Amino acid sequence: MKRIRLTVAYDGTNYCGWQIQPNGITIEAVLNDALTGLLGEPIRVIGASRTDSGVHALGNVAVFDMEASIPPERISYALNRRLPEDIVIVKSEQVPQGWHPRYCNSTKTYAYHILNAPVPDPTKRLTSYFVSYRLDIEAMRQAAEYLVGEHNFASFCNIKTNTEDMVRTVYDLQISEHPCCIEEGREIVILIRGNGFLYNMVRIIAGTLLRVGRGFYTPQQVENILKAQNRQEAGVTAPPQGLTLVNIQYEQ
Amino acid sequence: MKRIRLTVAYDGTNYCGWQIQPNGITIEAVLNDALTGLLGEPIRVIGASRTDSGVHALGNVAVFDMEASIPPERISYALNRRLPEDIVIVKSEQVPQGWHPRYCNSTKTYAYHILNAPVPDPTKRLTSYFVSYRLDIEAMRQAAEYLVGEHNFASFCNIKTNTEDMVRTVYDLQISEHPCCIEEGREIVILIRGNGFLYNMVRIIAGTLLRVGRGFYTPQQVENILKAQNRQEAGVTAPPQGLTLVNIQYEQ
Repeated sequence: MKRIRLTVAYDGTNYCGWQIQPNGITIEAVLNDALTGLLGEPIRVIGASRTDSGVHALGNVAVFDMEASIPPERISYALNRRLPEDIVIVKSEQVPQGWHPRYCNSTKTYAYHILNAPVPDPTKRLTSYFVSYRLDIEAMRQAAEYLVGEHNFASFCNIKTNTEDMVRTVYDLQISEHPCCIEEGREIVILIRGNGFLYNMVRIIAGTLLRVGRGFYTPQQVENILKAQNRQEAGVTAPPQGLTLVNIQYEQ
Repeated sequence: MKRIRLTVAYDGTNYCGWQIQPNGITIEAVLNDALTGLLGEPIRVIGASRTDSGVHALGNVAVFDMEASIPPERISYALNRRLPEDIVIVKSEQVPQGWHPRYCNSTKTYAYHILNAPVPDPTKRLTSYFVSYRLDIEAMRQAAEYLVGEHNFASFCNIKTNTEDMVRTVYDLQISEHPCCIEEGREIVILIRGNGFLYNMVRIIAGTLLRVGRGFYTPQQVENILKAQNRQEAGVTAPPQGLTLVNIQYEQ
Protein backbone atom coordinates (compact mmCIF):
# COMPACT_ATOMS: atom_id res chain seq x y z
CA MET A 1 0.00 0.00 0.00
CA LYS A 2 1.36 3.40 -1.02
CA ARG A 3 0.07 6.82 0.06
CA ILE A 4 0.01 9.29 -2.82
CA ARG A 5 -0.29 13.07 -2.56
CA LEU A 6 -1.93 15.06 -5.35
CA THR A 7 -1.63 18.80 -5.94
CA VAL A 8 -4.90 19.78 -7.57
CA ALA A 9 -5.90 22.90 -9.55
CA TYR A 10 -9.50 23.55 -10.52
CA ASP A 11 -12.01 26.04 -11.77
CA GLY A 12 -14.72 25.68 -9.12
CA THR A 13 -17.48 27.23 -11.25
CA ASN A 14 -19.19 23.98 -12.22
CA TYR A 15 -18.85 22.20 -8.86
CA CYS A 16 -20.70 22.21 -5.55
CA GLY A 17 -17.36 22.69 -3.82
CA TRP A 18 -14.78 20.11 -2.84
CA GLN A 19 -16.65 17.84 -0.47
CA ILE A 20 -18.97 15.05 -1.65
CA GLN A 21 -22.62 16.16 -1.61
CA PRO A 22 -25.77 14.11 -2.04
CA ASN A 23 -27.07 16.45 -4.76
CA GLY A 24 -24.44 17.86 -7.05
CA ILE A 25 -21.05 17.12 -8.55
CA THR A 26 -18.01 17.89 -6.40
CA ILE A 27 -14.26 17.90 -7.00
CA GLU A 28 -13.80 15.11 -4.46
CA ALA A 29 -16.37 12.86 -6.17
CA VAL A 30 -14.85 13.43 -9.62
CA LEU A 31 -11.35 12.61 -8.30
CA ASN A 32 -12.59 9.45 -6.60
CA ASP A 33 -14.30 8.25 -9.79
CA ALA A 34 -11.33 9.04 -12.02
CA LEU A 35 -8.83 7.38 -9.66
CA THR A 36 -11.02 4.32 -9.18
CA GLY A 37 -11.29 3.99 -12.96
CA LEU A 38 -7.58 4.52 -13.52
CA LEU A 39 -6.28 2.20 -10.79
CA GLY A 40 -8.97 -0.48 -10.84
CA GLU A 41 -9.45 -0.39 -7.07
CA PRO A 42 -11.87 1.67 -4.97
CA ILE A 43 -10.22 5.01 -4.09
CA ARG A 44 -11.36 7.68 -1.66
CA VAL A 45 -9.26 10.81 -1.43
CA ILE A 46 -8.74 12.89 1.72
CA GLY A 47 -8.61 16.60 0.90
CA ALA A 48 -6.69 19.34 2.70
CA SER A 49 -9.18 22.13 2.14
CA ARG A 50 -12.92 21.74 1.57
CA THR A 51 -13.37 24.74 -0.70
CA ASP A 52 -16.90 26.12 -1.16
CA SER A 53 -18.99 26.02 -4.28
CA GLY A 54 -17.57 28.39 -6.90
CA VAL A 55 -14.19 28.77 -5.17
CA HIS A 56 -11.09 27.95 -7.25
CA ALA A 57 -7.73 26.36 -6.46
CA LEU A 58 -4.29 26.31 -8.00
CA GLY A 59 -2.84 24.07 -5.30
CA ASN A 60 -5.29 22.19 -3.14
CA VAL A 61 -3.87 18.92 -1.78
CA ALA A 62 -5.36 15.44 -1.48
CA VAL A 63 -4.02 12.02 -0.55
CA PHE A 64 -5.16 8.46 -1.18
CA ASP A 65 -3.85 4.94 -0.69
CA MET A 66 -3.36 2.47 -3.53
CA GLU A 67 -2.15 -1.05 -4.15
CA ALA A 68 -1.45 -0.36 -7.82
CA SER A 69 2.13 -0.43 -9.07
CA ILE A 70 1.93 2.64 -11.33
CA PRO A 71 4.86 4.99 -10.59
CA PRO A 72 3.53 7.74 -8.29
CA GLU A 73 4.81 10.61 -10.40
CA ARG A 74 3.06 9.19 -13.51
CA ILE A 75 -0.38 9.30 -11.92
CA SER A 76 -0.81 13.01 -12.70
CA TYR A 77 -0.41 12.43 -16.46
CA ALA A 78 -2.67 9.39 -16.54
CA LEU A 79 -5.30 11.05 -14.36
CA ASN A 80 -5.39 14.29 -16.34
CA ARG A 81 -6.46 12.32 -19.40
CA ARG A 82 -9.50 11.08 -17.48
CA LEU A 83 -10.42 14.35 -15.78
CA PRO A 84 -12.60 17.13 -17.22
CA GLU A 85 -10.62 20.15 -18.37
CA ASP A 86 -11.59 22.23 -15.32
CA ILE A 87 -9.64 19.95 -12.96
CA VAL A 88 -5.88 19.52 -13.42
CA ILE A 89 -3.48 17.40 -11.37
CA VAL A 90 -0.38 19.56 -11.09
CA LYS A 91 1.75 16.96 -9.31
CA SER A 92 1.54 13.43 -7.88
CA GLU A 93 4.11 11.98 -5.47
CA GLN A 94 4.45 9.34 -2.80
CA VAL A 95 4.33 10.42 0.86
CA PRO A 96 4.90 8.36 4.02
CA GLN A 97 2.05 6.06 5.03
CA GLY A 98 -0.16 7.89 7.51
CA TRP A 99 0.75 11.37 6.29
CA HIS A 100 -2.48 13.41 6.53
CA PRO A 101 -3.09 16.70 4.65
CA ARG A 102 -5.10 18.27 7.50
CA TYR A 103 -3.15 17.05 10.56
CA CYS A 104 0.23 18.45 9.55
CA ASN A 105 1.31 22.02 10.23
CA SER A 106 0.96 24.03 7.08
CA THR A 107 0.84 27.52 5.65
CA LYS A 108 -2.03 28.26 3.30
CA THR A 109 -2.13 31.07 0.79
CA TYR A 110 -5.39 32.42 -0.64
CA ALA A 111 -5.97 35.14 -3.23
CA TYR A 112 -9.14 37.19 -3.54
CA HIS A 113 -9.59 38.86 -6.94
CA ILE A 114 -11.53 42.09 -7.45
CA LEU A 115 -12.20 43.77 -10.79
CA ASN A 116 -12.44 47.49 -9.97
CA ALA A 117 -13.64 49.02 -13.21
CA PRO A 118 -16.41 51.27 -14.51
CA VAL A 119 -17.97 48.45 -16.55
CA PRO A 120 -18.20 44.71 -15.82
CA ASP A 121 -16.19 42.28 -17.93
CA PRO A 122 -18.28 39.15 -18.52
CA THR A 123 -15.14 37.09 -19.19
CA LYS A 124 -14.03 37.76 -15.59
CA ARG A 125 -17.37 37.25 -13.84
CA LEU A 126 -16.52 33.69 -12.72
CA THR A 127 -13.02 34.47 -11.42
CA SER A 128 -13.35 37.87 -9.75
CA TYR A 129 -15.76 40.09 -7.84
CA PHE A 130 -16.79 43.13 -9.86
CA VAL A 131 -16.80 46.42 -7.94
CA SER A 132 -17.68 49.57 -9.87
CA TYR A 133 -17.11 52.16 -7.11
CA ARG A 134 -13.56 53.46 -6.75
CA LEU A 135 -11.73 51.67 -3.95
CA ASP A 136 -9.27 53.42 -1.61
CA ILE A 137 -6.43 50.89 -1.68
CA GLU A 138 -4.32 52.76 0.86
CA ALA A 139 -7.12 52.61 3.43
CA MET A 140 -7.55 48.88 2.71
CA ARG A 141 -3.82 48.34 3.27
CA GLN A 142 -3.93 50.19 6.60
CA ALA A 143 -6.91 48.10 7.70
CA ALA A 144 -5.18 44.89 6.65
CA GLU A 145 -2.30 45.56 9.05
CA TYR A 146 -4.60 45.06 12.06
CA LEU A 147 -5.34 41.52 10.91
CA VAL A 148 -1.74 40.34 10.62
CA GLY A 149 -0.51 38.28 13.57
CA GLU A 150 -2.09 35.83 16.01
CA HIS A 151 -5.68 36.76 16.82
CA ASN A 152 -9.05 35.31 17.68
CA PHE A 153 -10.82 35.65 14.32
CA ALA A 154 -14.38 34.93 15.58
CA SER A 155 -15.62 38.14 13.91
CA PHE A 156 -14.41 36.71 10.59
CA CYS A 157 -15.97 33.24 10.85
CA ASN A 158 -19.29 32.00 9.52
CA ILE A 159 -21.48 31.31 12.59
CA LYS A 160 -22.34 27.86 11.18
CA THR A 161 -18.87 26.62 12.09
CA ASN A 162 -18.14 23.65 14.35
CA THR A 163 -14.71 25.00 15.25
CA GLU A 164 -14.21 26.06 18.86
CA ASP A 165 -10.68 27.43 18.77
CA MET A 166 -10.90 30.62 16.71
CA VAL A 167 -7.27 31.65 17.14
CA ARG A 168 -5.30 31.72 13.91
CA THR A 169 -2.13 33.42 12.73
CA VAL A 170 -2.09 35.55 9.60
CA TYR A 171 1.54 35.83 8.49
CA ASP A 172 0.98 38.20 5.64
CA LEU A 173 -1.85 40.18 4.04
CA GLN A 174 -0.89 42.08 0.89
CA ILE A 175 -3.13 44.09 -1.40
CA SER A 176 -1.77 44.61 -4.90
CA GLU A 177 -3.24 46.43 -7.87
CA HIS A 178 -2.55 45.91 -11.55
CA PRO A 179 -3.99 47.90 -14.45
CA CYS A 180 -6.18 45.70 -16.65
CA CYS A 181 -4.38 44.64 -19.84
CA ILE A 182 -7.05 45.56 -22.36
CA GLU A 183 -9.81 47.45 -20.57
CA GLU A 184 -10.31 50.41 -18.29
CA GLY A 185 -9.91 49.69 -14.62
CA ARG A 186 -7.67 47.61 -12.42
CA GLU A 187 -7.44 44.21 -10.87
CA ILE A 188 -6.98 44.17 -7.12
CA VAL A 189 -5.64 41.04 -5.46
CA ILE A 190 -5.87 40.45 -1.72
CA LEU A 191 -3.20 37.85 -0.95
CA ILE A 192 -3.36 36.30 2.51
CA ARG A 193 -1.06 33.73 4.08
CA GLY A 194 -1.66 32.03 7.42
CA ASN A 195 -1.43 28.86 9.47
CA GLY A 196 -5.12 28.12 9.00
CA PHE A 197 -8.39 29.78 8.13
CA LEU A 198 -11.85 29.58 9.70
CA TYR A 199 -15.02 28.89 7.72
CA ASN A 200 -15.42 31.76 5.17
CA MET A 201 -12.62 33.70 6.90
CA VAL A 202 -10.92 34.96 3.75
CA ARG A 203 -14.21 35.98 2.14
CA ILE A 204 -15.34 37.85 5.27
CA ILE A 205 -11.97 39.60 5.47
CA ALA A 206 -12.34 40.54 1.78
CA GLY A 207 -15.88 41.83 2.37
CA THR A 208 -14.69 43.88 5.35
CA LEU A 209 -11.70 45.35 3.51
CA LEU A 210 -14.03 46.27 0.64
CA ARG A 211 -16.15 48.27 3.09
CA VAL A 212 -13.01 50.09 4.15
CA GLY A 213 -12.11 50.68 0.52
CA ARG A 214 -15.51 52.20 -0.06
CA GLY A 215 -15.22 54.46 2.99
CA PHE A 216 -17.97 52.79 5.07
CA TYR A 217 -15.44 51.78 7.75
CA THR A 218 -12.25 53.59 8.73
CA PRO A 219 -9.14 51.39 8.79
CA GLN A 220 -9.07 51.74 12.59
CA GLN A 221 -12.55 50.25 12.92
CA VAL A 222 -11.15 46.95 11.71
CA GLU A 223 -9.18 46.72 14.95
CA ASN A 224 -12.44 47.09 16.91
CA ILE A 225 -14.19 44.54 14.68
CA LEU A 226 -11.39 42.06 15.38
CA LYS A 227 -11.54 42.68 19.16
CA ALA A 228 -15.34 42.31 19.23
CA GLN A 229 -15.07 38.58 18.35
CA ASN A 230 -18.56 38.93 16.89
CA ARG A 231 -19.43 38.03 13.32
CA GLN A 232 -22.08 40.75 13.14
CA GLU A 233 -19.46 43.48 13.45
CA ALA A 234 -17.62 42.56 10.25
CA GLY A 235 -18.61 43.13 6.62
CA VAL A 236 -20.56 40.78 4.39
CA THR A 237 -19.02 37.60 3.04
CA ALA A 238 -17.57 38.47 -0.37
CA PRO A 239 -18.83 36.15 -3.15
CA PRO A 240 -17.04 32.83 -3.78
CA GLN A 241 -15.92 33.32 -7.37
CA GLY A 242 -13.25 35.86 -6.33
CA LEU A 243 -11.48 33.33 -4.12
CA THR A 244 -8.62 31.01 -5.09
CA LEU A 245 -6.66 28.66 -2.82
CA VAL A 246 -3.19 29.36 -4.19
CA ASN A 247 -1.12 26.75 -2.34
CA ILE A 248 -0.53 24.83 0.89
CA GLN A 249 3.03 24.54 2.17
CA TYR A 250 3.69 21.76 4.68
CA GLU A 251 6.37 21.81 7.31
CA GLN A 252 8.86 18.96 7.12
CA MET B 1 -38.35 55.01 -35.99
CA LYS B 2 -35.07 55.41 -34.16
CA ARG B 3 -31.78 53.62 -34.85
CA ILE B 4 -30.04 52.54 -31.67
CA ARG B 5 -26.40 51.48 -31.31
CA LEU B 6 -25.39 48.99 -28.63
CA THR B 7 -21.88 48.38 -27.33
CA VAL B 8 -21.86 44.73 -26.31
CA ALA B 9 -19.47 42.75 -24.07
CA TYR B 10 -19.67 38.99 -23.80
CA ASP B 11 -18.01 35.82 -22.69
CA GLY B 12 -18.25 33.77 -25.87
CA THR B 13 -17.72 30.41 -24.16
CA ASN B 14 -21.34 29.31 -24.18
CA TYR B 15 -22.25 30.61 -27.64
CA CYS B 16 -21.86 29.40 -31.20
CA GLY B 17 -20.44 32.81 -32.06
CA TRP B 18 -22.26 36.01 -32.91
CA GLN B 19 -24.24 35.10 -36.00
CA ILE B 20 -27.58 33.27 -35.87
CA GLN B 21 -27.15 29.53 -36.49
CA PRO B 22 -29.77 26.87 -37.12
CA ASN B 23 -28.33 24.63 -34.35
CA GLY B 24 -27.01 26.46 -31.34
CA ILE B 25 -27.44 29.63 -29.32
CA THR B 26 -25.71 32.75 -30.59
CA ILE B 27 -25.18 36.24 -29.21
CA GLU B 28 -27.23 37.72 -32.04
CA ALA B 29 -30.20 35.45 -31.34
CA VAL B 30 -30.15 36.17 -27.61
CA LEU B 31 -30.03 39.94 -28.27
CA ASN B 32 -32.92 39.73 -30.74
CA ASP B 33 -35.05 37.79 -28.25
CA ALA B 34 -34.25 40.07 -25.32
CA LEU B 35 -34.90 43.25 -27.35
CA THR B 36 -38.11 41.88 -28.82
CA GLY B 37 -39.31 41.03 -25.31
CA LEU B 38 -38.27 44.38 -23.89
CA LEU B 39 -39.66 46.61 -26.62
CA GLY B 40 -42.73 44.59 -27.63
CA GLU B 41 -41.90 44.78 -31.33
CA PRO B 42 -39.90 42.39 -33.52
CA ILE B 43 -36.24 43.42 -33.41
CA ARG B 44 -33.32 42.19 -35.52
CA VAL B 45 -29.91 43.57 -34.73
CA ILE B 46 -27.14 44.16 -37.27
CA GLY B 47 -23.73 43.35 -35.81
CA ALA B 48 -20.38 44.92 -36.64
CA SER B 49 -18.26 41.82 -36.15
CA ARG B 50 -19.42 38.22 -36.45
CA THR B 51 -17.10 36.73 -33.87
CA ASP B 52 -16.48 32.97 -33.93
CA SER B 53 -17.63 30.43 -31.38
CA GLY B 54 -15.68 30.85 -28.13
CA VAL B 55 -14.34 34.32 -29.02
CA HIS B 56 -15.04 37.09 -26.49
CA ALA B 57 -15.79 40.80 -26.81
CA LEU B 58 -15.57 43.85 -24.62
CA GLY B 59 -16.90 46.19 -27.28
CA ASN B 60 -18.67 44.62 -30.22
CA VAL B 61 -21.26 46.92 -31.81
CA ALA B 62 -24.80 46.29 -33.02
CA VAL B 63 -27.63 48.49 -34.23
CA PHE B 64 -31.38 48.03 -34.51
CA ASP B 65 -34.43 50.13 -35.31
CA MET B 66 -37.32 50.63 -32.90
CA GLU B 67 -40.63 52.43 -32.69
CA ALA B 68 -40.65 52.32 -28.87
CA SER B 69 -40.37 55.57 -26.92
CA ILE B 70 -37.94 54.32 -24.26
CA PRO B 71 -35.00 56.77 -23.94
CA PRO B 72 -32.09 55.28 -25.94
CA GLU B 73 -29.56 55.54 -23.09
CA ARG B 74 -31.92 53.63 -20.76
CA ILE B 75 -32.08 50.57 -23.01
CA SER B 76 -28.75 49.21 -21.69
CA TYR B 77 -30.06 49.05 -18.10
CA ALA B 78 -33.39 47.51 -19.05
CA LEU B 79 -31.78 45.02 -21.43
CA ASN B 80 -29.09 43.89 -18.98
CA ARG B 81 -31.81 42.72 -16.61
CA ARG B 82 -33.16 40.43 -19.34
CA LEU B 83 -29.81 39.14 -20.58
CA PRO B 84 -27.83 36.20 -19.17
CA GLU B 85 -24.84 37.28 -17.10
CA ASP B 86 -22.36 36.42 -19.85
CA ILE B 87 -23.70 39.19 -22.11
CA VAL B 88 -23.54 42.82 -20.95
CA ILE B 89 -24.70 45.93 -22.78
CA VAL B 90 -22.03 48.51 -21.99
CA LYS B 91 -23.78 51.42 -23.71
CA SER B 92 -26.89 52.23 -25.73
CA GLU B 93 -27.31 55.42 -27.77
CA GLN B 94 -29.21 56.80 -30.72
CA VAL B 95 -27.40 57.11 -34.08
CA PRO B 96 -28.58 58.64 -37.34
CA GLN B 97 -31.08 56.57 -39.34
CA GLY B 98 -29.18 54.47 -41.87
CA TRP B 99 -25.93 54.40 -39.89
CA HIS B 100 -24.49 50.91 -40.46
CA PRO B 101 -21.87 49.28 -38.21
CA ARG B 102 -20.10 47.51 -41.09
CA TYR B 103 -20.26 50.18 -43.82
CA CYS B 104 -18.52 52.96 -41.87
CA ASN B 105 -14.76 53.36 -41.66
CA SER B 106 -13.58 52.04 -38.36
CA THR B 107 -10.55 50.93 -36.39
CA LYS B 108 -10.88 47.59 -34.63
CA THR B 109 -8.73 46.44 -31.74
CA TYR B 110 -8.31 42.78 -30.86
CA ALA B 111 -6.37 41.16 -28.01
CA TYR B 112 -5.02 37.61 -28.03
CA HIS B 113 -4.22 36.23 -24.54
CA ILE B 114 -1.58 33.59 -23.92
CA LEU B 115 -0.81 31.99 -20.56
CA ASN B 116 2.90 31.11 -20.75
CA ALA B 117 3.46 29.07 -17.62
CA PRO B 118 4.86 25.70 -16.58
CA VAL B 119 1.44 24.45 -15.44
CA PRO B 120 -2.04 25.15 -16.86
CA ASP B 121 -4.46 27.25 -14.81
CA PRO B 122 -7.97 25.80 -15.24
CA THR B 123 -9.53 29.15 -14.30
CA LYS B 124 -7.93 30.71 -17.39
CA ARG B 125 -8.62 27.89 -19.86
CA LEU B 126 -11.63 29.67 -21.39
CA THR B 127 -10.01 33.10 -21.77
CA SER B 128 -6.45 32.35 -22.85
CA TYR B 129 -4.32 29.90 -24.79
CA PHE B 130 -2.03 27.88 -22.53
CA VAL B 131 1.54 27.50 -23.81
CA SER B 132 4.01 25.67 -21.59
CA TYR B 133 7.19 26.13 -23.64
CA ARG B 134 9.12 29.33 -23.00
CA LEU B 135 8.35 31.97 -25.63
CA ASP B 136 10.95 34.35 -27.04
CA ILE B 137 9.02 37.61 -26.79
CA GLU B 138 11.73 39.69 -28.46
CA ALA B 139 11.64 37.47 -31.54
CA MET B 140 7.84 37.74 -31.61
CA ARG B 141 8.09 41.54 -31.46
CA GLN B 142 10.56 41.61 -34.34
CA ALA B 143 8.27 39.39 -36.39
CA ALA B 144 5.27 41.56 -35.58
CA GLU B 145 6.93 44.60 -37.15
CA TYR B 146 6.70 43.02 -40.63
CA LEU B 147 2.93 42.87 -40.31
CA VAL B 148 2.38 46.53 -39.48
CA GLY B 149 1.23 48.66 -42.40
CA GLU B 150 -0.88 48.12 -45.52
CA HIS B 151 -0.42 44.60 -46.89
CA ASN B 152 -2.24 41.83 -48.70
CA PHE B 153 -2.93 39.46 -45.80
CA ALA B 154 -4.00 36.44 -47.90
CA SER B 155 -1.50 34.26 -45.99
CA PHE B 156 -3.37 35.14 -42.80
CA CYS B 157 -6.90 34.44 -43.99
CA ASN B 158 -8.99 31.28 -43.64
CA ILE B 159 -9.37 29.85 -47.17
CA LYS B 160 -13.13 29.52 -46.63
CA THR B 161 -13.52 33.30 -46.98
CA ASN B 162 -15.76 35.04 -49.50
CA THR B 163 -13.66 38.20 -49.39
CA GLU B 164 -11.79 39.09 -52.57
CA ASP B 165 -9.86 42.15 -51.47
CA MET B 166 -7.27 40.89 -48.99
CA VAL B 167 -5.56 44.24 -48.43
CA ARG B 168 -5.85 45.56 -44.89
CA THR B 169 -3.90 48.02 -42.79
CA VAL B 170 -2.52 47.06 -39.40
CA TYR B 171 -1.86 50.30 -37.52
CA ASP B 172 -0.29 48.76 -34.48
CA LEU B 173 0.78 45.32 -33.21
CA GLN B 174 2.09 45.28 -29.65
CA ILE B 175 3.12 42.29 -27.56
CA SER B 176 3.11 42.87 -23.82
CA GLU B 177 3.95 40.53 -20.96
CA HIS B 178 2.80 40.66 -17.36
CA PRO B 179 3.82 38.35 -14.53
CA CYS B 180 0.85 36.33 -13.27
CA CYS B 181 -0.54 37.73 -10.01
CA ILE B 182 -0.66 34.52 -8.01
CA GLU B 183 1.05 31.78 -9.98
CA GLU B 184 4.29 31.09 -11.76
CA GLY B 185 4.44 32.27 -15.32
CA ARG B 186 3.32 35.24 -17.32
CA GLU B 187 0.43 36.46 -19.37
CA ILE B 188 1.29 37.57 -22.88
CA VAL B 189 -1.12 39.83 -24.74
CA ILE B 190 -0.92 40.39 -28.49
CA LEU B 191 -2.78 43.65 -29.11
CA ILE B 192 -3.56 44.45 -32.75
CA ARG B 193 -5.28 47.47 -34.20
CA GLY B 194 -6.31 47.82 -37.81
CA ASN B 195 -8.85 49.11 -40.32
CA GLY B 196 -10.33 45.65 -40.78
CA PHE B 197 -9.48 41.99 -40.38
CA LEU B 198 -9.95 39.00 -42.65
CA TYR B 199 -11.58 35.73 -41.55
CA ASN B 200 -9.46 34.28 -38.68
CA MET B 201 -6.73 36.85 -39.41
CA VAL B 202 -5.90 37.67 -35.78
CA ARG B 203 -5.85 34.01 -34.76
CA ILE B 204 -3.58 33.06 -37.70
CA ILE B 205 -1.27 35.97 -36.86
CA ALA B 206 -1.22 34.77 -33.23
CA GLY B 207 -0.47 31.20 -34.31
CA THR B 208 2.33 32.42 -36.57
CA LEU B 209 3.89 34.66 -33.90
CA LEU B 210 3.75 31.72 -31.47
CA ARG B 211 5.81 29.67 -33.93
CA VAL B 212 8.35 32.49 -33.96
CA GLY B 213 8.28 32.59 -30.16
CA ARG B 214 9.01 28.89 -30.07
CA GLY B 215 11.90 29.22 -32.52
CA PHE B 216 10.28 27.31 -35.41
CA TYR B 217 10.32 30.44 -37.61
CA THR B 218 12.83 33.26 -37.57
CA PRO B 219 11.27 36.73 -37.34
CA GLN B 220 12.46 37.39 -40.91
CA GLN B 221 10.48 34.42 -42.23
CA VAL B 222 7.28 36.28 -41.37
CA GLU B 223 8.11 38.78 -44.09
CA ASN B 224 8.31 35.89 -46.60
CA ILE B 225 5.08 34.39 -45.29
CA LEU B 226 3.33 37.72 -45.82
CA LYS B 227 4.73 38.10 -49.34
CA ALA B 228 3.72 34.56 -50.29
CA GLN B 229 0.00 35.44 -50.06
CA ASN B 230 -0.60 31.77 -49.36
CA ARG B 231 -2.41 30.52 -46.27
CA GLN B 232 -0.28 27.35 -46.18
CA GLU B 233 2.87 29.34 -45.43
CA ALA B 234 1.59 30.75 -42.11
CA GLY B 235 1.21 29.04 -38.74
CA VAL B 236 -1.88 27.27 -37.45
CA THR B 237 -4.96 29.20 -36.38
CA ALA B 238 -4.60 29.81 -32.63
CA PRO B 239 -7.64 28.63 -30.64
CA PRO B 240 -10.64 30.94 -30.25
CA GLN B 241 -10.75 31.29 -26.46
CA GLY B 242 -7.62 33.48 -26.45
CA LEU B 243 -9.26 36.12 -28.64
CA THR B 244 -11.20 39.19 -27.50
CA LEU B 245 -12.61 41.96 -29.68
CA VAL B 246 -11.63 44.92 -27.51
CA ASN B 247 -13.37 47.78 -29.30
CA ILE B 248 -14.42 49.35 -32.58
CA GLN B 249 -13.79 53.03 -33.10
CA TYR B 250 -15.79 54.72 -35.86
CA GLU B 251 -14.71 57.75 -37.79
CA GLN B 252 -17.05 60.72 -37.54
